Amino acid sequence: MVSQIQIVENVLKLNDEVAAFNRAQLREAGVLAIGVLGAPGCGKTALLEATLARFGGRERIGVLVGDLATTRDAERLARHAEHVVQINTGNGCHLDANQVRQSLGRLPLDALDVVFIENVGNLICPVNFDLGEDVKVGVLSVAEGDDKPAKHPQFVRAVEALVLNKIDLLPVVEFDRAAFERDIRRVHEDVTICPVSVTQGHLDAWFEWLEQRLSAHRTAEFATHT
Amino acid sequence: MVSQIQIVENVLKLNDEVAAFNRAQLREAGVLAIGVLGAPGCGKTALLEATLARFGGRERIGVLVGDLATTRDAERLARHAEHVVQINTGNGCHLDANQVRQSLGRLPLDALDVVFIENVGNLICPVNFDLGEDVKVGVLSVAEGDDKPAKHPQFVRAVEALVLNKIDLLPVVEFDRAAFERDIRRVHEDVTICPVSVTQGHLDAWFEWLEQRLSAHRTAEFATHT
Repeated sequence: MVSQIQIVENVLKLNDEVAAFNRAQLREAGVLAIGVLGAPGCGKTALLEATLARFGGRERIGVLVGDLATTRDAERLARHAEHVVQINTGNGCHLDANQVRQSLGRLPLDALDVVFIENVGNLICPVNFDLGEDVKVGVLSVAEGDDKPAKHPQFVRAVEALVLNKIDLLPVVEFDRAAFERDIRRVHEDVTICPVSVTQGHLDAWFEWLEQRLSAHRTAEFATHT
Repeated sequence: MVSQIQIVENVLKLNDEVAAFNRAQLREAGVLAIGVLGAPGCGKTALLEATLARFGGRERIGVLVGDLATTRDAERLARHAEHVVQINTGNGCHLDANQVRQSLGRLPLDALDVVFIENVGNLICPVNFDLGEDVKVGVLSVAEGDDKPAKHPQFVRAVEALVLNKIDLLPVVEFDRAAFERDIRRVHEDVTICPVSVTQGHLDAWFEWLEQRLSAHRTAEFATHT
């Protein structure tokens, strides 16, 4: 079993080297890269559709989107953005840095401000793979139940913002919001929790977080180049 | 990259050998073993709670339940069954045959009729790991959207029954049931689809499938031992 563990570590080490290359490339182009993680059906693509509709007019946005099969998500997103690349992973349960490296090569990075990287629907494996993004955000849905933060502490620790989607379903599903937030704070005290309903267009908490993140990025960019 | 692929194949080969051992052990004891797969929050544990409440009086049931962290699911299930073992996988995104082998050792197999093996919440990785179960069933929820069968064809192919949970939410979520079923039939024509609402107690389709499976198992057992 030791040799198996060593191989996994080698894979992660190689991944981290490619991720560092991606990060350098994105920084060079002044692009803010945001990874989006969450379980199947939590609403990652819908969140990005709404985000592109809101920010697409003023920010130049590219999207990489991972899935085992189909180009459905890329097709949905391509209605709102010019630069969308679908990555089909086949059996692959997460994106890796090399897939992202290849796909970044298909985006005009110098002409972009932001790149979203939507991972494969999975709460577990994507957490361990750095892709070179500046920040990871997580999406959970109230339909998944209030126990997901307790069961997936690594996921909660890995993200800077946690979008709680489908709050329009709160009246019809069992969900203890206090317990949900308590389990989050236990492992990641200062994560920003953004309650939203993408289908109902209630997205203020998420848009506010993103606005602040973009503003902080622009300030840092300005400082770097002056 | 070739060496990486070979290692993965070795791991799967070793897993399959242990799975065959588990299968032989379960057959020897006359136990029907049912793997339960699905995304985080689709309702796997709730389905098993209801199943134990319904069948626990006449079948002797054991449960193995996998999760990254916490013993919450085992605690829920232990209210309805005497023999429940929680397997915490840490970072592990799926159960493997060796974890199941060790946990089966903690169940009195000769005194059981059925063992449910609830996998870690994940639509991808558990599909590739045989645990020695007789049959896999999948759980999807309408809250996850109608596109999951198209995006996860390997998952659909791997299961004999597909429980579609949370149908009570159909009036309040977007879900094209015809498209959902068409995508399923495209990759697995004769899978049994069981629409249920665990929270509302609408479980007839699932109980009916399980009843038939138990009956078929008993007939095969009888033929073997006479």
